[in-house]
Amino acid sequence: MKQSQLFTKTRREAPKDEVSKNAQLLIRAGYIHKEMAGVYDFLPLGLRVLNKIVGIIREEMNAIGGQEVHMTALQDKGKWEATDRWSDKVNDIWFKTKLKNDTELGLGFTHEEPLTSIMKDHIRSYKDLPKAVYQFQTKFRNEARAKSGILRGREFLMKDLYSFSIDEKSHNIYYAKAKDAYMKIFNRLGIGDQTFVTFATGGSFSKYSHEFQTLCEAGEDLIYIDEKKKMAVNKEVLNDEVLNDLGLSRAELVEKKAIEVGNIFSLGTKFSGALGLNYRDESGKDIAVNMGCYGIGPSRVMGTIAEVWSDDKGLVWPESVAPFKVHLVAIFGKDTASGGAGKVRQAADELYASLTAKGVEVLYDDRDCSAGEKFGDSDLIGIPWRYVISEKTLATDSIEVKDRKTGTVEMKKLK
Amino acid sequence: MKQSQLFTKTRREAPKDEVSKNAQLLIRAGYIHKEMAGVYDFLPLGLRVLNKIVGIIREEMNAIGGQEVHMTALQDKGKWEATDRWSDKVNDIWFKTKLKNDTELGLGFTHEEPLTSIMKDHIRSYKDLPKAVYQFQTKFRNEARAKSGILRGREFLMKDLYSFSIDEKSHNIYYAKAKDAYMKIFNRLGIGDQTFVTFATGGSFSKYSHEFQTLCEAGEDLIYIDEKKKMAVNKEVLNDEVLNDLGLSRAELVEKKAIEVGNIFSLGTKFSGALGLNYRDESGKDIAVNMGCYGIGPSRVMGTIAEVWSDDKGLVWPESVAPFKVHLVAIFGKDTASGGAGKVRQAADELYASLTAKGVEVLYDDRDCSAGEKFGDSDLIGIPWRYVISEKTLATDSIEVKDRKTGTVEMKKLK
Repeated sequence: MKQSQLFTKTRREAPKDEVSKNAQLLIRAGYIHKEMAGVYDFLPLGLRVLNKIVGIIREEMNAIGGQEVHMTALQDKGKWEATDRWSDKVNDIWFKTKLKNDTELGLGFTHEEPLTSIMKDHIRSYKDLPKAVYQFQTKFRNEARAKSGILRGREFLMKDLYSFSIDEKSHNIYYAKAKDAYMKIFNRLGIGDQTFVTFATGGSFSKYSHEFQTLCEAGEDLIYIDEKKKMAVNKEVLNDEVLNDLGLSRAELVEKKAIEVGNIFSLGTKFSGALGLNYRDESGKDIAVNMGCYGIGPSRVMGTIAEVWSDDKGLVWPESVAPFKVHLVAIFGKDTASGGAGKVRQAADELYASLTAKGVEVLYDDRDCSAGEKFGDSDLIGIPWRYVISEKTLATDSIEVKDRKTGTVEMKKLK
Repeated sequence: MKQSQLFTKTRREAPKDEVSKNAQLLIRAGYIHKEMAGVYDFLPLGLRVLNKIVGIIREEMNAIGGQEVHMTALQDKGKWEATDRWSDKVNDIWFKTKLKNDTELGLGFTHEEPLTSIMKDHIRSYKDLPKAVYQFQTKFRNEARAKSGILRGREFLMKDLYSFSIDEKSHNIYYAKAKDAYMKIFNRLGIGDQTFVTFATGGSFSKYSHEFQTLCEAGEDLIYIDEKKKMAVNKEVLNDEVLNDLGLSRAELVEKKAIEVGNIFSLGTKFSGALGLNYRDESGKDIAVNMGCYGIGPSRVMGTIAEVWSDDKGLVWPESVAPFKVHLVAIFGKDTASGGAGKVRQAADELYASLTAKGVEVLYDDRDCSAGEKFGDSDLIGIPWRYVISEKTLATDSIEVKDRKTGTVEMKKLK
């Protein structure tokens, strides 16, 4: 894409009310726009990053047999009363609204209830199981405080997968597969090294649930990590019994701040029981389906990457999620500054065309502005590879290639 | 995809409260699920169709320079008060909700206000124009009645593009381009022949707006078409002055029911004026940006296609939007009925693998059920090409290929 065509502009200062690093950088670089606290629009560069994150998660969910659907935000209260999650006293993060006839509706903050109900139309026999169903869908959570940029949204994108198995044993097999898929995802997203499988409270159907926690000073969670074993426990389950259980020693644990980028949870028959999702076994008996849920917030992941992969100059995207792979920065000489067909512009146009033809995603800074402004914007936007083309580089028939992450610079022949 | 793995099942009867043909068929075939009137989930087959519609629209929007974004559902009332669209007396389709601190919020039914505000950060000079920005985003409309399935949703997917130009002349050039792109889209979606560019009320900034109306008995609109000229006028502008203006004669017009599948609208400076979106011209004067908006509802389009392209046996998808191109139906002989590796299953597995390897999208009915059930489901689901493989077809080393639309059958050699 030609940067002269991109409608967003960078800005020097972040909005004064924005205290989180992720939002400050993403707003300054033109990736997102704030509607209100915890509610952000995704602009072209931001949507490209979000879609790459979504694409990676989708591939891994398909690889473990997930079937994609799209459920609604508007929620009918009956289903949520059946599981005792409708009342604001039980769940204080509902956004609620009303139909014209005063029927109360909620805006979904998760989707166990509607999906369990849908599956009642489709699961009859043990032969119909196991199944896994997922979606990428906008969730609404009426958070009292939302000061962490896109790390904690009142409206945000969520990937939620739900599994349906005949029993706990079969569920555990899927759960283990999903756990592996999650680590694969965080590795591909470039935050695998910082992300710890973290043991947390399991609820009534399982001893533990698992969180995926990315070490980061901006995190709201405190976890206790064993670096050698690459394991962690959440504060809520830090006790001798659990440590013993997991083979961890308190002396080896280090307290760290972290961002929860994913979580997986055994639900047992909590929802299937309440909503009547049964299957018929081989002997003809009706049995409640065993369920699990598996969440990742792509927008929160994007905020986490922005926190972890950035420096004082701007964002430093991992290649797998960067909006473009190459930032082609043309420094026009005097002959081309006014938009003329000078030597640099011609060479840059050709390079842009040939890279694009090869399928390389390029943001081409063809704007008529100073080299300083272009380099500043390029550092801020944070595309992995910067190709600089100028009268100077053309003198040796070369371009300068700079690695945004390491700062390494080398000259590369054009032909 | 193997049909034995697909979690959805077809059903013989549609829900009794469902009166529209599109919802009846789409629910029976497992494409959608009804949460409440006007609120539908998209199941795997349905999401595939919806995504294909989205893909076609996206290509054509990119082709006319659209830059994709994603805006939020939650709306801050200040911006809407500025344009006098907040009050329920002015706009009676708002869903409204509240933050914990009682701040009122709306759920977006369109996005002129937030996008105009975003553009204030990015448009400064005449050099920044023209620009076109679009999104695929969930809209919420508190419709009093919603009995038309996915034709009229309370929650539905919308593609809304907004254009920003220096003046009316420049706007008109973009508007004409968008109008052409829209007809290209409806042609590609398989409803071009039935879809008429229809003149409708233009509002304060333009004499006309344009609707794209698809002839259909299920339509809620009445339009007057000139079949020869492939033009139509909406009832609201059917008067002598307009007919004269458009070179139409009342005698040539035929009244038809139609579904509005798209509309494009000149907005002039209504929103830019109210919200202060200006650009600086060459002489240094600040001038309000000239805007247009361009909508298509992919979910409504899907419902329209289901209405137009269906028969008494089920859906008849055009190839461009079908969930799969080929429905491979294996009729297992006695030796394979119990899941054994018989001749038919082996040949079907091989054909499935080779088609998939070639990139052909195949739904492979590998279920252990009767031929009658398989053919019935296949007609209902409505994939364009049915490949039947059975002991009988294998006797001549062939498959039977049936065109869902025409019913034409021919035998095709396997190798």
